[in-house]
Amino acid sequence: MLIDEGLELLDEPEVMRLLANCEVGRVGVTIGALPAIFPVNYRLIDGCVVFRSSPGSKLSAAANRTVVAFEVDDYNVADRSGWSVLAVGPSMVVHDLDVTFRTLEAGLLPYVDGPRGAIVRITPTFVSGRRIVHLPVGASSPTG
Amino acid sequence: MLIDEGLELLDEPEVMRLLANCEVGRVGVTIGALPAIFPVNYRLIDGCVVFRSSPGSKLSAAANRTVVAFEVDDYNVADRSGWSVLAVGPSMVVHDLDVTFRTLEAGLLPYVDGPRGAIVRITPTFVSGRRIVHLPVGASSPTG
Repeated sequence: MLIDEGLELLDEPEVMRLLANCEVGRVGVTIGALPAIFPVNYRLIDGCVVFRSSPGSKLSAAANRTVVAFEVDDYNVADRSGWSVLAVGPSMVVHDLDVTFRTLEAGLLPYVDGPRGAIVRITPTFVSGRRIVHLPVGASSPTG
Repeated sequence: MLIDEGLELLDEPEVMRLLANCEVGRVGVTIGALPAIFPVNYRLIDGCVVFRSSPGSKLSAAANRTVVAFEVDDYNVADRSGWSVLAVGPSMVVHDLDVTFRTLEAGLLPYVDGPRGAIVRITPTFVSGRRIVHLPVGASSPTG
């Protein structure tokens, strides 16, 4: 188990499994030179994060032809457990019928009412993941 | 109720109330020119987001003397409900005994084992919030 600053580092298959099994994540973009983070519901299709947005919205504009961060996590306040995964890569509004068709077929319905006719795809070029580990008191981690 | 792209816009008191009542949020920073998002457990102290990190860690370095995004959300997959708030502002590793004292007194314990001796403070200069609203079918929103 690789430990980094008290967190177990997750390997890529585990990161992709977690990404595939969740449905809400957060997109980190830059809007007007300022950082912003917005939650979206998404699907993982062909290893890419796909979500819906409104054409012309701040988010679809900010997530088109740029590099963005995408994060998914889960945690439990009661026992201080949790994990997070991060995928970073170029993002683009999709104008591809095949991807559009498969996105809709995958059941990606926006949580928000109203038109969400833009499909945004993030192609991860880098993924990472961390999980909180609570070692027994007195135990030392193998990698420090 | 102000509606923006199908989302109710939350006013500042409501945003600050939500920030004060949660304990895990996500920090959006830039590391080596690439965007990244990391979850942290935090407290709201004097209207500022305060969290602990390791001195010399990637996160404390990336969140020192720069402008960062901080996001908190909650959602329910079953009924497609949810809200999110965003605070953007300068972030800094705190070297102030008073803030350090009050942070520890506020019970801010890191979830992760091991030293988390750096306290990072984000001073929001801009906050916003959104909540999903499902209007009855056939109803139109007052602001479109």
